[in-house]
Amino acid sequence: MSSGVGIVEVRRGGLVESRHRVSAALIDEQGRLLAHVGDPELVSFFRSAAKPFQALPLVADSVTEAFAFSDAELAICCASHSGEPLHVETVLGLLRRVGCSEDDLECGPHPPFHQPSAEALRREGRPPTRVHNNCSGKHTGMLAWSRHMGVETVGYRRADHPVQLRIRRQIAELTGTPSDRLQAAVDGCGVVTYAQPLNGMAAAFARLVGSAERDAASPAGRVVRAMTGQPYYVGGSGRLSTRLMQTTGGRLLAKYGAEAVMCLADRERRWGAAVKIEDGQKRAVGPAVVEFLAQAGLLSEGEQQALGEEHVTPVLNTRGEVVGELRARLRLAGSG
Amino acid sequence: MSSGVGIVEVRRGGLVESRHRVSAALIDEQGRLLAHVGDPELVSFFRSAAKPFQALPLVADSVTEAFAFSDAELAICCASHSGEPLHVETVLGLLRRVGCSEDDLECGPHPPFHQPSAEALRREGRPPTRVHNNCSGKHTGMLAWSRHMGVETVGYRRADHPVQLRIRRQIAELTGTPSDRLQAAVDGCGVVTYAQPLNGMAAAFARLVGSAERDAASPAGRVVRAMTGQPYYVGGSGRLSTRLMQTTGGRLLAKYGAEAVMCLADRERRWGAAVKIEDGQKRAVGPAVVEFLAQAGLLSEGEQQALGEEHVTPVLNTRGEVVGELRARLRLAGSG
Repeated sequence: MSSGVGIVEVRRGGLVESRHRVSAALIDEQGRLLAHVGDPELVSFFRSAAKPFQALPLVADSVTEAFAFSDAELAICCASHSGEPLHVETVLGLLRRVGCSEDDLECGPHPPFHQPSAEALRREGRPPTRVHNNCSGKHTGMLAWSRHMGVETVGYRRADHPVQLRIRRQIAELTGTPSDRLQAAVDGCGVVTYAQPLNGMAAAFARLVGSAERDAASPAGRVVRAMTGQPYYVGGSGRLSTRLMQTTGGRLLAKYGAEAVMCLADRERRWGAAVKIEDGQKRAVGPAVVEFLAQAGLLSEGEQQALGEEHVTPVLNTRGEVVGELRARLRLAGSG
Repeated sequence: MSSGVGIVEVRRGGLVESRHRVSAALIDEQGRLLAHVGDPELVSFFRSAAKPFQALPLVADSVTEAFAFSDAELAICCASHSGEPLHVETVLGLLRRVGCSEDDLECGPHPPFHQPSAEALRREGRPPTRVHNNCSGKHTGMLAWSRHMGVETVGYRRADHPVQLRIRRQIAELTGTPSDRLQAAVDGCGVVTYAQPLNGMAAAFARLVGSAERDAASPAGRVVRAMTGQPYYVGGSGRLSTRLMQTTGGRLLAKYGAEAVMCLADRERRWGAAVKIEDGQKRAVGPAVVEFLAQAGLLSEGEQQALGEEHVTPVLNTRGEVVGELRARLRLAGSG
């Protein structure tokens, strides 16, 4: 296999049945490319991996102070949560505290990612509502910002709303892409989302943890502490971002985005990483991310073992039999 | 774009967010490659696209005659059905007629593909059972063969059971791959499945319709008549295989297989085709298949229009807004 190539193989019995192509970039705080596979300049949308940046203005503009956000509450503003009861309670509590209700959320409903929670709703005959949307915490943060700044809450999801203009400047600053050159589209939850090459995403995550480590009391410091200290609120039971932060005791910051984007940072080294599965399929993200981090020396043997079935994922059939596996074949290229 | 390249682009706003690579082969009855994109020799498993071949012995060995199968019943033996009430009734009726019950099915349960049917089960508090498995008709056919031939039904799904040895010879004959060189694995429903390059899959489908057109009373003729005449029983409401056969008035035979394989045949031209999305993701199959068939001249303008959102598929967010689309960019290469 030539240098810089990355594939996640889907094996059934002795043959590879499907293949996912991987691109990834590892970047230091100065923006230097340390290692990559595939195309480190592949452009994708941040999607939910932008959530830490969407939450920074909450701290910087004293919204978290005004409404006395706990770390768990700030973490859920950075979350793609699983809709477990504790997630839903936390969002509803925060909504009340900022003087809003579920009706003010502009995301659409979807069933909780957490299967037992989705099944509980079904058993009770309750359709999922907006608060179950994995982005409801982020939306609540945007409502809180609007309340605190005294601007109209309706339409907070649109690109021209003050909260989105504020976030756009934040993302421009961290990625180094001028604000007027950030390409926008509409995310799954209705909020504006921005495009970025993988090396830009990784650099933004490196800068985020760099700022956080230099000054724990900075907005970056507060956001990184909330996410890495309360990883359950950033995802949920068994979710990859949550597990990566839990398994490394918060040394890694991790945030997944739809269409198979994972942004990461190592707080000790102040390095950032971004991994994208070309075809957008989620099942390949765990194998690609764990193998990329392992080869880059960012996961110990013990941590790799603890992430076992995220690293090499069994394929089961409807009888519950293991009939294959997903496994990443990566060969990292250096910067040289 | 260079000749022979095939991609399904997933666009969000003005940018391509994800990409699916397409391989496809179009083959005539003599096995000649007429057109292709990507790698026409890409090896994958037949999965459910083997179902017409798995059903041929039912006719050839007089099982359909002995148990008086209707066309709809033979079609459901070739089906990845949606678990709609009519599918479930048809399978249960056939099971009774051959002297078996749902307990004899060796597939695992999964919720019906048809969402209203899945929701109805949930509302009634009934967990899905084996008969709801999309392959339950195929399994019933294998039970019927075993009953008729007087062999043990238990273990009919295993590679060394007489019904599977019979099917293996059938697949070897139609693909031209010697039986002892067919590579096997276990399918999602527990039955043995065989690997084949795309051009081999396409050739087998060309030979199937070739035999059918030469002799309507042949096993191939009976299977092709059942599938193209009763397409609802081969899939279900809104399913791609069903719609392709309905839209063309049965001129095309179509059967989807898991991990994004679609096998097709044009009965008039006696050509076969096989399309595979490299990464196995189902959402790209409609755009790739309809565009491939359109460029190969196998779908009229009217038929392409009737398959509208299969051809260019809108991407919706949780608010129900159209935020992007899937569209195939193919450039067919000729055989020369």
